[in-house]
Amino acid sequence: MITKQSEIGLIGLGVLGGSYAQALSSAGYEHITAVEIDESSVALAKEKGWITKGGDDPKLLSDCDLVISCLYPGVFVSWIEEHQDVLKRGCLLSDVTGVKRVICEKINGILREDVEFLACHPMAGREFRGIRYADAERFKGANFIIVPTEANSEEAIETMKTLAEDMKFKTIAVLSPEEHDRMISFLSQLTHVIAVALMNCNDNTDLARYTGDSFRDLTRISRINEMMWPELFVLNKDYLVSDINAFIDELTDFREKILNEDTEGMKQKMIQSTSRRACFDKERN
Amino acid sequence: MITKQSEIGLIGLGVLGGSYAQALSSAGYEHITAVEIDESSVALAKEKGWITKGGDDPKLLSDCDLVISCLYPGVFVSWIEEHQDVLKRGCLLSDVTGVKRVICEKINGILREDVEFLACHPMAGREFRGIRYADAERFKGANFIIVPTEANSEEAIETMKTLAEDMKFKTIAVLSPEEHDRMISFLSQLTHVIAVALMNCNDNTDLARYTGDSFRDLTRISRINEMMWPELFVLNKDYLVSDINAFIDELTDFREKILNEDTEGMKQKMIQSTSRRACFDKERN
Repeated sequence: MITKQSEIGLIGLGVLGGSYAQALSSAGYEHITAVEIDESSVALAKEKGWITKGGDDPKLLSDCDLVISCLYPGVFVSWIEEHQDVLKRGCLLSDVTGVKRVICEKINGILREDVEFLACHPMAGREFRGIRYADAERFKGANFIIVPTEANSEEAIETMKTLAEDMKFKTIAVLSPEEHDRMISFLSQLTHVIAVALMNCNDNTDLARYTGDSFRDLTRISRINEMMWPELFVLNKDYLVSDINAFIDELTDFREKILNEDTEGMKQKMIQSTSRRACFDKERN
Repeated sequence: MITKQSEIGLIGLGVLGGSYAQALSSAGYEHITAVEIDESSVALAKEKGWITKGGDDPKLLSDCDLVISCLYPGVFVSWIEEHQDVLKRGCLLSDVTGVKRVICEKINGILREDVEFLACHPMAGREFRGIRYADAERFKGANFIIVPTEANSEEAIETMKTLAEDMKFKTIAVLSPEEHDRMISFLSQLTHVIAVALMNCNDNTDLARYTGDSFRDLTRISRINEMMWPELFVLNKDYLVSDINAFIDELTDFREKILNEDTEGMKQKMIQSTSRRACFDKERN
């Protein structure tokens, strides 16, 4: 079991790695080590008191009881392929990636047998990159999803639950990789595709001065990290493409109702959307 | 020219009519008359001191120098057909409807020659109906669009500018009916169609507890007034259907890039959406 005195390792000090370092140090974890190739990020984390050790050498992690990769999916897999020999026997490995079926399969396929991998997804990403945008406060309204496979121990699940509680996540849930990826496809990936497509379908910048809150809210996430999302979309493409198709079908159906001036049909759709949307109100969840 | 002592008439005391009554009375307009068939709305407006006279008889408006219809488009046209004989010779007629080409054509086609109609669109609608949701505070961040045709006088345009300033609208702009309808199709109608379609494309209410801000922001407007919007969509269907088609084309293109694992192509689209979205930031407008 992990305690506040355990050695915790982080791989990557970007916006999420930095926020983890901040949240864990605030929660009283005493030994936090970060491996990060960007020196200035390491320096900043030390200066803020978020980490006790840091540098670009993977060997820094060799005493860690828990190591959390805060890398993008592909980089995480490569890192494990190259550097997993530095991990301590019996250590617990976790991550923060936004897709899980492929990651669980790839990591479990290459990982040493004496290291356990438990996938996790802190749903607190943001459109900005780098430790300068790290902000553990954002965890307070966010969901933390633990995504075990049959290979995982109860102890590992309990450890990550405790860690998420200590980092002040609002809700902690356990989902299978399939459930996770299906949920993330609809709630997160599809919405990002929609926002990007809306922004790109028309050179609309001359309309900016007339913009109201509806358009702003809908397109906020079209300001997007282009280094991360294409990879996440590809790694979840079966579910995502199926969601995009269902959405296009629904749009097409709505368009036909407009063309046919079928106001009654539109009304029914709006009554349904209004009633479904009420289930998503913040107060209710 | 209208002054604070002029007789101002409102037709309809719904959420917008009520907000107009509130904003105008707060601005010091001394004589505000409302025609509204719902007695309780009239009573509430009187109780709050927003109107000086009110009732269901159109004749109440016979002394008004300015009459503003706060009715839905079709009801507005019918009202003019039936009751325009009560309007004072030389009075200015305005409205609040969300589509303009059809309204200008229809109203100007039937209106008495001694009454001038100047279309206006206060872009401050909300998803709730009725005077109980009236809130003139919402005008402070909102746009007011004046939509003249060749038939309008400069004096009428100046009058409505002054009125919008007095009601504390943030930005006042003048657009032709075509420019207005094209802008509203893209910025407002298309976004509502998207939100409704997203909410309806999947029975997703079991996912509510995992919802983050992205999905909530994108679907906020799927809680929608089904009595008003179908009519607005139909009255603007040429522009709206063309915008829906452009959006579906862009979505389809994005879907193909996911299927082909074309991460470079997706990156380019995200770089474009990020840079365009920056033009819509609140601070910049």
